[in-house]
Amino acid sequence: MEKLLLFIDYAGVAVFAITGCLVAAKKQLDIVSFVLLAAVTGIGGGTARDVVLGNLPVFWVKQPLYLIDCVVTAIVMFFVARHVASYQKWIVWGDAVGVAVFTVTGAKIALDAGAHWSVCITMGVMTSIVGGIIRDILAGEPSLIIRKEIYATACALGAAVFLVVHTYAPTMAVLAGVASCFALRAAAIIWRLQLPGYQWIEDHTEKRRASDGSAP
Amino acid sequence: MEKLLLFIDYAGVAVFAITGCLVAAKKQLDIVSFVLLAAVTGIGGGTARDVVLGNLPVFWVKQPLYLIDCVVTAIVMFFVARHVASYQKWIVWGDAVGVAVFTVTGAKIALDAGAHWSVCITMGVMTSIVGGIIRDILAGEPSLIIRKEIYATACALGAAVFLVVHTYAPTMAVLAGVASCFALRAAAIIWRLQLPGYQWIEDHTEKRRASDGSAP
Amino acid sequence: MEKLLLFIDYAGVAVFAITGCLVAAKKQLDIVSFVLLAAVTGIGGGTARDVVLGNLPVFWVKQPLYLIDCVVTAIVMFFVARHVASYQKWIVWGDAVGVAVFTVTGAKIALDAGAHWSVCITMGVMTSIVGGIIRDILAGEPSLIIRKEIYATACALGAAVFLVVHTYAPTMAVLAGVASCFALRAAAIIWRLQLPGYQWIEDHTEKRRASDGSAP
Repeated sequence: MEKLLLFIDYAGVAVFAITGCLVAAKKQLDIVSFVLLAAVTGIGGGTARDVVLGNLPVFWVKQPLYLIDCVVTAIVMFFVARHVASYQKWIVWGDAVGVAVFTVTGAKIALDAGAHWSVCITMGVMTSIVGGIIRDILAGEPSLIIRKEIYATACALGAAVFLVVHTYAPTMAVLAGVASCFALRAAAIIWRLQLPGYQWIEDHTEKRRASDGSAP
Repeated sequence: MEKLLLFIDYAGVAVFAITGCLVAAKKQLDIVSFVLLAAVTGIGGGTARDVVLGNLPVFWVKQPLYLIDCVVTAIVMFFVARHVASYQKWIVWGDAVGVAVFTVTGAKIALDAGAHWSVCITMGVMTSIVGGIIRDILAGEPSLIIRKEIYATACALGAAVFLVVHTYAPTMAVLAGVASCFALRAAAIIWRLQLPGYQWIEDHTEKRRASDGSAP
Repeated sequence: MEKLLLFIDYAGVAVFAITGCLVAAKKQLDIVSFVLLAAVTGIGGGTARDVVLGNLPVFWVKQPLYLIDCVVTAIVMFFVARHVASYQKWIVWGDAVGVAVFTVTGAKIALDAGAHWSVCITMGVMTSIVGGIIRDILAGEPSLIIRKEIYATACALGAAVFLVVHTYAPTMAVLAGVASCFALRAAAIIWRLQLPGYQWIEDHTEKRRASDGSAP
């Protein structure tokens, strides 16, 4: 189980790195930008988590294989991105597995450090989404926060399930957390689920006055 | 006094979180984005301060009530944002109080850690503005730095007054710092004060050539 | 040598700060934004490095002269930016020297902390580019990562040369690293060198269909 999680961890970092490279490829960037975006996406979330918790130096300074994982992925991608992009569907699913594992890993690290449950959930979400958010900002794309996908929601669910199950059946907690996060994300991908957006209505009096004109 | 400051501290975080939610509401985002923007705005500045000073884990990991403060604010706001927005005027004033308190809190934490006065002022400013800056970047809005409001200026003044008064009359320092920061921010809000922007003049020779045409 | 490096270090921070001020000047921002962009650009990279490595508090909290360096540079620039901008050519070269020194400083700090070579190179690159990246994001400009200049590449080369030479001739390592980084950056400036961008080709079948029309 430990080994499987570790393998998925490296594979997850690679998948995150690939999503960074796909953005780089679409913008026709050079190989160095491929590496930068791959690294930021692959290890950005865990870095933010470690900094906030005070687990310093951050994980990839202690275990540089994560860094090398990103760099190698980026170099390979620079030569094959075109072909990988046509498997975009697979990337989305790989990303979903990665997100599920990262969320539970992040929540577990916080729990082991004795953090409050609200902090554990936050760390789970942070580990999964910060890398992608920085990737989008650096690339000048609208960030995850603005899009209405169910993504952070799945992370919050997975981390919460992990914590609840951990109280009653610790040995099942990781599996339950990963499964629930993946299940919600999978449902969101398949049925294009969205949470309802806030219905903003401009100032009512103003609207009434303009009601014969074009509504905003 | 301690208790009052603590109350204002939580209230200030909530007001900052509300400004994050108002941005989320105008962009018609979902409830999870409300929570994310509320948290980033409410506790982002203090997080940056704690990281730079090495006070790790950061304050909201030690005291998760700050985190819960943001989450609850976001959930409430998702259902009432429309009505709160019409009190935008009040929000601006709440924000001004929050900024004044955060600035002095930030400067005080740095001072207690034995930092140089220049670092104390920087920490005061950082605590107050970083959350809002990240909020604007995440939401794709022009950040505080580009707008010409008197905001960071008020923070720098408040932190400086706090430090000067602290040397001569420590018991009055917090009050003096908060009051001066709030006063300048209030003046800026009421009279729409702006610092003069840099007058950029394009290359002179080019301008002379184009002097019969439209000046840049 | 130590003293020369220290002098170049402060001068490099000032040059980085100047590039922040030039962005502020072109956007006609006020003096406080000059200071903010100068500080972020001047000390942002080293801050990120120190945080990731866990060297906390960060360098400018321990040695506030770096902070004051940025603030003084910004205030001076607010009054003379117009004239400095006409020496933009000189700024680019000062920036190249700063980048070379920062890269090797960053790599050396990581090496002294016992980090893996891949981490040392990353720290060299991070020290040099993070400040400029945050500057561009705050100012709403396309970040370094999107532009195709040879910049991070020169940093990676300089850090790598430093590490290799350090193994065989430690006394020459700093000089060799700085020289190689500067040389590549200089070549990139003089001959406007670019790495080839990724050639993105949209879906082939689609392209064939549209082959009589305008190619993408």
